[in-house]
Amino acid sequence: MNRRLILVDPHPRTLDLIFDPDTRGRFDALGELVIHEGEPMPDELVDKHLDEAVLIIGQTAMPTERLQRARKLRAIINVETNFLPNIDYEYCLREGIHVLAPGSAFAPAVAEAALAMAIDLVRGIRAADRDFRAGREEYGLAGNRGSFMFTGAPVGLIGFGDLGQHFRRLIVPFRNPVRAYDPWLSDQFLRSHDVEPSSLEEVLATSRIVLAFAGVTADNQGFLDRRAFDVMQPGSAFLLMSRAAIVDFPELVRQATTGRLKVAIDVFPEEPVASDDPIRSVEGILLSAYRTGGMPEALFEIGRQTVGDAEPILRGLAPVSCRRAQRETVARMRSKPISMT
Amino acid sequence: MNRRLILVDPHPRTLDLIFDPDTRGRFDALGELVIHEGEPMPDELVDKHLDEAVLIIGQTAMPTERLQRARKLRAIINVETNFLPNIDYEYCLREGIHVLAPGSAFAPAVAEAALAMAIDLVRGIRAADRDFRAGREEYGLAGNRGSFMFTGAPVGLIGFGDLGQHFRRLIVPFRNPVRAYDPWLSDQFLRSHDVEPSSLEEVLATSRIVLAFAGVTADNQGFLDRRAFDVMQPGSAFLLMSRAAIVDFPELVRQATTGRLKVAIDVFPEEPVASDDPIRSVEGILLSAYRTGGMPEALFEIGRQTVGDAEPILRGLAPVSCRRAQRETVARMRSKPISMT
Amino acid sequence: MNRRLILVDPHPRTLDLIFDPDTRGRFDALGELVIHEGEPMPDELVDKHLDEAVLIIGQTAMPTERLQRARKLRAIINVETNFLPNIDYEYCLREGIHVLAPGSAFAPAVAEAALAMAIDLVRGIRAADRDFRAGREEYGLAGNRGSFMFTGAPVGLIGFGDLGQHFRRLIVPFRNPVRAYDPWLSDQFLRSHDVEPSSLEEVLATSRIVLAFAGVTADNQGFLDRRAFDVMQPGSAFLLMSRAAIVDFPELVRQATTGRLKVAIDVFPEEPVASDDPIRSVEGILLSAYRTGGMPEALFEIGRQTVGDAEPILRGLAPVSCRRAQRETVARMRSKPISMT
Amino acid sequence: MNRRLILVDPHPRTLDLIFDPDTRGRFDALGELVIHEGEPMPDELVDKHLDEAVLIIGQTAMPTERLQRARKLRAIINVETNFLPNIDYEYCLREGIHVLAPGSAFAPAVAEAALAMAIDLVRGIRAADRDFRAGREEYGLAGNRGSFMFTGAPVGLIGFGDLGQHFRRLIVPFRNPVRAYDPWLSDQFLRSHDVEPSSLEEVLATSRIVLAFAGVTADNQGFLDRRAFDVMQPGSAFLLMSRAAIVDFPELVRQATTGRLKVAIDVFPEEPVASDDPIRSVEGILLSAYRTGGMPEALFEIGRQTVGDAEPILRGLAPVSCRRAQRETVARMRSKPISMT
Repeated sequence: MNRRLILVDPHPRTLDLIFDPDTRGRFDALGELVIHEGEPMPDELVDKHLDEAVLIIGQTAMPTERLQRARKLRAIINVETNFLPNIDYEYCLREGIHVLAPGSAFAPAVAEAALAMAIDLVRGIRAADRDFRAGREEYGLAGNRGSFMFTGAPVGLIGFGDLGQHFRRLIVPFRNPVRAYDPWLSDQFLRSHDVEPSSLEEVLATSRIVLAFAGVTADNQGFLDRRAFDVMQPGSAFLLMSRAAIVDFPELVRQATTGRLKVAIDVFPEEPVASDDPIRSVEGILLSAYRTGGMPEALFEIGRQTVGDAEPILRGLAPVSCRRAQRETVARMRSKPISMT
Repeated sequence: MNRRLILVDPHPRTLDLIFDPDTRGRFDALGELVIHEGEPMPDELVDKHLDEAVLIIGQTAMPTERLQRARKLRAIINVETNFLPNIDYEYCLREGIHVLAPGSAFAPAVAEAALAMAIDLVRGIRAADRDFRAGREEYGLAGNRGSFMFTGAPVGLIGFGDLGQHFRRLIVPFRNPVRAYDPWLSDQFLRSHDVEPSSLEEVLATSRIVLAFAGVTADNQGFLDRRAFDVMQPGSAFLLMSRAAIVDFPELVRQATTGRLKVAIDVFPEEPVASDDPIRSVEGILLSAYRTGGMPEALFEIGRQTVGDAEPILRGLAPVSCRRAQRETVARMRSKPISMT
Repeated sequence: MNRRLILVDPHPRTLDLIFDPDTRGRFDALGELVIHEGEPMPDELVDKHLDEAVLIIGQTAMPTERLQRARKLRAIINVETNFLPNIDYEYCLREGIHVLAPGSAFAPAVAEAALAMAIDLVRGIRAADRDFRAGREEYGLAGNRGSFMFTGAPVGLIGFGDLGQHFRRLIVPFRNPVRAYDPWLSDQFLRSHDVEPSSLEEVLATSRIVLAFAGVTADNQGFLDRRAFDVMQPGSAFLLMSRAAIVDFPELVRQATTGRLKVAIDVFPEEPVASDDPIRSVEGILLSAYRTGGMPEALFEIGRQTVGDAEPILRGLAPVSCRRAQRETVARMRSKPISMT
Repeated sequence: MNRRLILVDPHPRTLDLIFDPDTRGRFDALGELVIHEGEPMPDELVDKHLDEAVLIIGQTAMPTERLQRARKLRAIINVETNFLPNIDYEYCLREGIHVLAPGSAFAPAVAEAALAMAIDLVRGIRAADRDFRAGREEYGLAGNRGSFMFTGAPVGLIGFGDLGQHFRRLIVPFRNPVRAYDPWLSDQFLRSHDVEPSSLEEVLATSRIVLAFAGVTADNQGFLDRRAFDVMQPGSAFLLMSRAAIVDFPELVRQATTGRLKVAIDVFPEEPVASDDPIRSVEGILLSAYRTGGMPEALFEIGRQTVGDAEPILRGLAPVSCRRAQRETVARMRSKPISMT
């Protein structure tokens, strides 16, 4: 049997963080692993093994020239999970080299936190805790002024990829009417996932809770701006869960500061946020430091999907767990590389 | 057709708070209503109408002597929702007078808040917001030390009445193994509701998230004491949702203060809590001023169940929505009357 | 500790049929069992033990005079599962003697068979098998003339007790709009179980599949008559699952014979059906000889609910699994005793 | 704006069968349609329009030479739904021409019929109807000898594509343990769909109900043979729902004839089945003439997915509803073209 060489270049992730012991065992059994951690794999190491590599696990720069040499290469699995401009995607798609990312790995962690935050906003949970500490709590009905039930309230999703889909499944028992706006998905697809396809304006105007799960693309930077927020009903909740670049961030902060919207934010234009940023004292925002996804369990799921797809690929079968790079979308994504896990 | 006289004595609730307009219309059509709000119905008013009354809506004191005179009475519907020692229950049960309470009305409001609080505790959401405001937030994985996923974590329910049952339905999509301890319910019943019947010790020892939904009875005051909490795994979450009297309250505060348990509390031994009570500054407790149930929607559900059962009772049919007073349990309950809505 | 004497008088059932080995073990541990099988317990045996009996398991005749002597009696659990006129119910209800029946035991067996029969009717499954054997099958689309999808079709339930409720749960994934007619249940109750409360006429006129799960009462004999069936849309399906006496049986057969309705029948006015009854050759009826409920698993569930409630009753707690005899309904039921298991 | 020419070559399907009126309206608005029905589009018509066509809807032969000329072509949507050897798939995949098939359109129709058939087999519904007509029915428990409950019984799925996935969703309320064998799918994928990944032998040995939903490939013809069936427990049910070629058909018939297995068959080696084929009189087989999928609603879903994906493709977006031809699988499929709808 022929040698199966696998380049493992996971930086900024590390193998310990993405593999639980069982999955690491399966990973080690995939073939002959050439591993480099702690920094991107040095060029000389890549170049030395490129013509033998059947898989690349990581974010190795793969311009056309390298791909042309990698004649045994069957797949690149990006464990950072964003498709970045580090690869000649067109070449890979032409040549049948899968470019994959286990992007759904974060969905359970993000969705459960998003649900807790959504209920927190509409039921005033954190705010009531703060009032209690300040000695100004009110009990029972009096303590619930301005609150409304999450159960049954109209929910709007902006972006219906892995995160939106998982969130939708979590809220089934709450019987919310759910609308979704996602210009990349057909009405047919949205309806088959139990959401009502809607324009952005419909989502904003009719939902009492709006969650932004959209990635940032060439077309949608700052599209959630003052006009968009003003369409929302006063007292409604807006949760920014995916990418800060899709909103007019100062305007979102203003909506929270004036009390017009109840707001939760997990992603910021610059991270870490400046120590003197006034956002730190805005009471109307539930602040989360890019924490909703970064759970150990989510990282282990990256590993499981990676091995789960590497195994069939090496047997000549198609991958089924990871998301594939697609011609239509990969060129439009504007994700920044992560700077920390 | 004969006159249908109905005594309406809802204090401490008011009709405006428990009836939405549609339900109020149906309520008004039930018969001839004698309404007294703002205080308990005066004795002379009760006595004047007692022999004609077919229904009592409220918490009118109904000792044997009054019941003996109320020969047309078919049902008493307690809209405060706790069975108090204001009625000769045995007499009612003998004579076929239903004593009812729409106790499940609060379940959706309490359960959704309990879920948000449970996820908040295990994911550190409020604590992270506090750290962010203090300028000591950490991002991503580093910010999640000590957190764990709610999804899939073992959940334990102490008490499996309306609140526990509703909570169990809400968490189906999270795929938790769920144990319940409820000495009033058979294993058969618990299993048919998708929870594993367990001893108190099993629930405490194996669950990472424990929710106390039990009412207070003659037998269970303070049963969740130091020994009980010490059985729980360090870093686990405990949520006190139903009655303060079932726990050793100072011990629960101590477990939170030392950081051994993550704690949320919605009910306190005395309400309002004293302004200088040190609990107000314990960071390890998510504080909620008896707010989880008291939502306008929950109160309207009281009205809907009241009318929903009053209508069939007046047609000679059995009630199906409210909870019935039962010989075995009514004598054991030790609920205090509510002092505020 | 005092002696716990239990009269066990299960005829026409037998203990072997209602108890699996584990449950039998728990049953035997309940107390001192006086068992008589194969026929109703002889009077002298009943009379000998009556004043000591704490439980009766079975259908022992219990007129007032016997009940007065049974001063330790706490509950009667009817394992035949229909409330028959063999007991002074009013006496029991006054004195706090539970009269129980594990009536929901049959629901899973009946509901799954009813679902298969409903899909069979609308998709023509049995009819197509018959045509295939006769050499006149048609393939693909041509073979589906007159068929329609069960998925998404309007479903109507007549009677929404244990059977209807279980059936409703089974069909959740099919996303049918579901209406129910049940004059004993409030709209509030029906809506909380995800069915639209409707008049009988609405159910019949709007549903493509109607299932009769209603018991027979003093008021409803033959209420599904020619006028009722004529309200149904031609080509719709009607399934008689509960009691033959609620329909005008000859008219139902006529509707099937003419092909106006697709029909399934599990219960007949006389059982066994006469050997020369013309119904045996009506092709438009799916014939089932009272088979949908009588599964070994259903009978074992009778035993599990019996012991599941007997245990807490003997500890002074309330039963939670069996159905209770109620003043309003027990006097109206017109079930015949079963003549065979 | 440029002209959008679309070749419509749906034979053996017709547009009337795959488009409901609304979808037909959206289809007509896609661009300039060149439609040919009733036979494959004549070569001269294809050749005349090929260099302008942006979409092909149908099964037009598209060898390399034609594809090279179709320089504006963005997608081929096969409305017959099987990927046949009529296309140079490799060329399409290299050049970014989507080759799509709305294969999941049949899943709801097949899955609901399969469920009815599965319950029919294990509960003996059709067999009992036959016995009733023959005057040899038995009532109640006696009539259920050899039957078992579908609810809770171990279910095994052979093949876990669209059909298997839809079936799995339908049976959630029945709480079956479900195993699946599908060599093209990773364990990771199967577990995320709530089935236990298993070897073929495990599926056969442990399941009481086995459903074959697998397509036929270069590798699996006749893989369900005598050895496979003999692994199954006597009295279990086997349903052949997808392709006759995956089983040793005479052996399957033999297993039914001897009564060792309960069998349902929807697909046959030759269709129509010969008029004197002895299978027509085997009582142990529920016979279905390729009827489970061919419902009008399923065909309309082909149209909805076709338009649902054509619209975004023409806006430069990726398709999301149809299944895509993949290098790894398309070369291995051995579907026969359908000869009838």
